[in-house]
Amino acid sequence: MGRIICAGLGPGDPDLMSRRAERAVRGAGQVAYFRKAGRAGQARRIVEGMLAPGAVEHPMEYPVTTEIPFDSPEYIDRLSAFYDDWTERLAVLAASGDVVVLCEGDPFFYGSFMHLYMRLKDRVEIEVIPGITGMSGCWTGTGLPITWGDDVLCVLTGTLPEDELARRMAGSDALVVMKTGRNLPRIRRALERAGRLQDAWLVERGTMPGERILRLAEAATEDCPYFAIVLVHGQGRRPERAPPEGRAEAAE
Amino acid sequence: MGRIICAGLGPGDPDLMSRRAERAVRGAGQVAYFRKAGRAGQARRIVEGMLAPGAVEHPMEYPVTTEIPFDSPEYIDRLSAFYDDWTERLAVLAASGDVVVLCEGDPFFYGSFMHLYMRLKDRVEIEVIPGITGMSGCWTGTGLPITWGDDVLCVLTGTLPEDELARRMAGSDALVVMKTGRNLPRIRRALERAGRLQDAWLVERGTMPGERILRLAEAATEDCPYFAIVLVHGQGRRPERAPPEGRAEAAE
Repeated sequence: MGRIICAGLGPGDPDLMSRRAERAVRGAGQVAYFRKAGRAGQARRIVEGMLAPGAVEHPMEYPVTTEIPFDSPEYIDRLSAFYDDWTERLAVLAASGDVVVLCEGDPFFYGSFMHLYMRLKDRVEIEVIPGITGMSGCWTGTGLPITWGDDVLCVLTGTLPEDELARRMAGSDALVVMKTGRNLPRIRRALERAGRLQDAWLVERGTMPGERILRLAEAATEDCPYFAIVLVHGQGRRPERAPPEGRAEAAE
Repeated sequence: MGRIICAGLGPGDPDLMSRRAERAVRGAGQVAYFRKAGRAGQARRIVEGMLAPGAVEHPMEYPVTTEIPFDSPEYIDRLSAFYDDWTERLAVLAASGDVVVLCEGDPFFYGSFMHLYMRLKDRVEIEVIPGITGMSGCWTGTGLPITWGDDVLCVLTGTLPEDELARRMAGSDALVVMKTGRNLPRIRRALERAGRLQDAWLVERGTMPGERILRLAEAATEDCPYFAIVLVHGQGRRPERAPPEGRAEAAE
């Protein structure tokens, strides 16, 4: 009886995967990974050139497209059946030896693997290897720290209603907005309402080929790729000696 | 003229550092790292056995202890002078070759290095290598995903006032509380007021020797180590087919 090893691969640059994930990938006899039908798959792309000769690949192709609303019963049913199906298939595959599931980012942070994990965890031994999150890769790319001192960081998804986005954006110090893509126009409007647009950055394809980092206010919002994150940096407490003229607030 | 390379080393287990960070560490001619006076230093501990023979080490010892309140002018002044001092020393060291600064976690996420980074970035070429955050290591250790679907994740520091902690804890799906230690009793009270205590986990020394993962409600709050994080997992949207009896809310 083998194990399932879910290897978090990090934000995209293969050099940012962990030593443990690298070992799992290079040693894998069978790998599985999510992808959209007709695409190579981001997780698979990250390990290009690293798989052992003869490693058996199992692409897990999402059954749904953007044609059905993501909260419709039909969408939920199809996606659920897809996870149920791969639960059975991975359990069978693991019976003959370890299976390494390749996942971009950090698997337990908005990752698809957790839908399989929750179904499999009482049936098969599973190891999850954490990864550098996409957001860490993105804020490092901006060249500015995301959180200081007592800063509150709020991580939102662009799928939330505009009112909720605006309210939460106004009430936090540092911000990360995941799942941007076609939600970018709404995210931009919410940031503007919250008075945070001028401080917002858009990072497209962070740490990957084609990386693009710019002020959101200067970006076109129509054509945002799937791998894109919006950030606002915190401005929290940092120790600076009060200048001679005595600006006390600078010391906060 | 050399560069300064800040290597994010991840949550504690040396196997969780990135391939790029590993290369930087093994190839370093000079390394610098923060530590408390009289301690080995967490970042230094992570790279034990990995430094090249002859690598020159520069421990950067924090000048302050817990005897002075962290928001007093004296504390701010001492800490600021410490960062100013190491800014000069690292700039001089970098003039003779690359310096690798070792940092636990992800350097731009509540890391001390950013105080040096902001002072040095216009004087010396600096590369920052992101790392797996301590919180990723901790939630992976609990064996449960932290965020699903549209979950809002709020990252707080235990240094915040109890009222603010309680308010934010009540208003978010998933929670992470950093900087616990002696703040743990206040964090626990705030979670209780927010009705979240029963869902809270305490992870001490996540991914490190002596790791301890338990329900916060069952933990003693007096003796919490510095490396400890409090977590509440999100319970967001996950695709499950409605069971025959038709519990519609299960599909949300």
